[in-house]
Amino acid sequence: MTSWVRYVSARHGRGFGQLGENSQIHVYDGDLFDSPKPTDTRVQLADVTLLSPCQPSKIVALWNNFHALAEKTGKPVPSHALFLIKPSTCLNGTRSAIKRPASYRGKIAFEGELGIVIGKACRGVSREAAAGHIFGYTCINDVTAFGLLNEDPNFAQWTRAKGFDTFGVVGPCIVPEFDWHSACVVTTLNGVERQNYPLADMVLEPEVLVSQLSQDMTLLPGDVIACGTSLGAGSMPDGAKVEVTIAGIGSLANTMNG
Amino acid sequence: MTSWVRYVSARHGRGFGQLGENSQIHVYDGDLFDSPKPTDTRVQLADVTLLSPCQPSKIVALWNNFHALAEKTGKPVPSHALFLIKPSTCLNGTRSAIKRPASYRGKIAFEGELGIVIGKACRGVSREAAAGHIFGYTCINDVTAFGLLNEDPNFAQWTRAKGFDTFGVVGPCIVPEFDWHSACVVTTLNGVERQNYPLADMVLEPEVLVSQLSQDMTLLPGDVIACGTSLGAGSMPDGAKVEVTIAGIGSLANTMNG
Repeated sequence: MTSWVRYVSARHGRGFGQLGENSQIHVYDGDLFDSPKPTDTRVQLADVTLLSPCQPSKIVALWNNFHALAEKTGKPVPSHALFLIKPSTCLNGTRSAIKRPASYRGKIAFEGELGIVIGKACRGVSREAAAGHIFGYTCINDVTAFGLLNEDPNFAQWTRAKGFDTFGVVGPCIVPEFDWHSACVVTTLNGVERQNYPLADMVLEPEVLVSQLSQDMTLLPGDVIACGTSLGAGSMPDGAKVEVTIAGIGSLANTMNG
Repeated sequence: MTSWVRYVSARHGRGFGQLGENSQIHVYDGDLFDSPKPTDTRVQLADVTLLSPCQPSKIVALWNNFHALAEKTGKPVPSHALFLIKPSTCLNGTRSAIKRPASYRGKIAFEGELGIVIGKACRGVSREAAAGHIFGYTCINDVTAFGLLNEDPNFAQWTRAKGFDTFGVVGPCIVPEFDWHSACVVTTLNGVERQNYPLADMVLEPEVLVSQLSQDMTLLPGDVIACGTSLGAGSMPDGAKVEVTIAGIGSLANTMNG
């Protein structure tokens, strides 16, 4: 299994590469999305801090994309992707703090999700062509300041509630060959399982999402699509440890920093 | 009056500079937002194509920010900015076509607006400090695929309706010393005036917007805040010419390309 990570350390600077045996990173040169070149350099995973594995120009976050959640909330499932944009400035990686905004004292929720990482710029691609534009898959914690969503009765504040700095948690790696059909998203809060839902319950599947969203806007290499969450998303009290795990990708672990 | 433009031409390549006398551009080097350096080069405005004057990482678009429109629609005015994000990929400049999405046959609307261009990265700035983070002002046409907004009764599709490629029209220039208090936004459709509203009717003024939005996310140099529209926004039929003019800034002129 190929697994791409991005890292920084005082000794090695910033870089990216593939996770190899013995917890080593095989360092690559160039652009992850444009024929990256392997080098002879090896870096110990323990010696670096992992960053989000890509730097999206935008995170497109889906709403109402799992049958089980739609049934629970009584909403009909959509035929076209319903989404908002989380700005590039909210990007966060694994083992990094999720920060409570100074201006907000209310509930902050975790939402464990599958993330699609775009590999090639695409605009108006067919469902059949979409697979060729997907670089791989990652884990997402689509953090949400829940109390803001419906603060104004006339305008649902999706972007504000989900766009705060550190609220776009992506990682720990990107796996190109990941097969989502048989995988589950498992989210734990302080070690207790809170979400465990099958990706097979997804309404609009990754290739459909890429095709539909590429009709709505150009998707760029490194852009991330957060596929939406399902049952069990909930509050992260200050100090809580939250971990989103997808077997076959990895674990995205963060602490809520109040 | 200093007026910054960005341009491209086969002969001169891409560049930026200040509009000077005799329709010349005084070319600058470096970064517009970080001590750009004047050069001796002069380029004739007539010899280049103007681009959007900056390249925002995001366009933050306001909803319900003028008293007259709020009164007409019967919505209370907000005390905190209500917004969505238009992605960087929707950016468009003056004299460039607004393109109807292949997937959409419905009404496409113009919304003439004042744009704020951020000059320095800011996070959590006070209202008093906000002015120092504003680089200048520009004109905006916040193009909207109106028929998509309420297509799904459970989720207002602001981002989708406003995020299509070419729907973020910004320009023709940025004016740092612009005083918005006494200015109006005038929008014409095929030469007929359709909007003419005073910026003094704004609910949340530029410095308040920058302060509030910087509590919600980090604003980066070149990011644009579209201050919201007022009365008269309406449909742009295919082939229509639309022009957003703010005296003291300039005219942003585009054609709707069906």
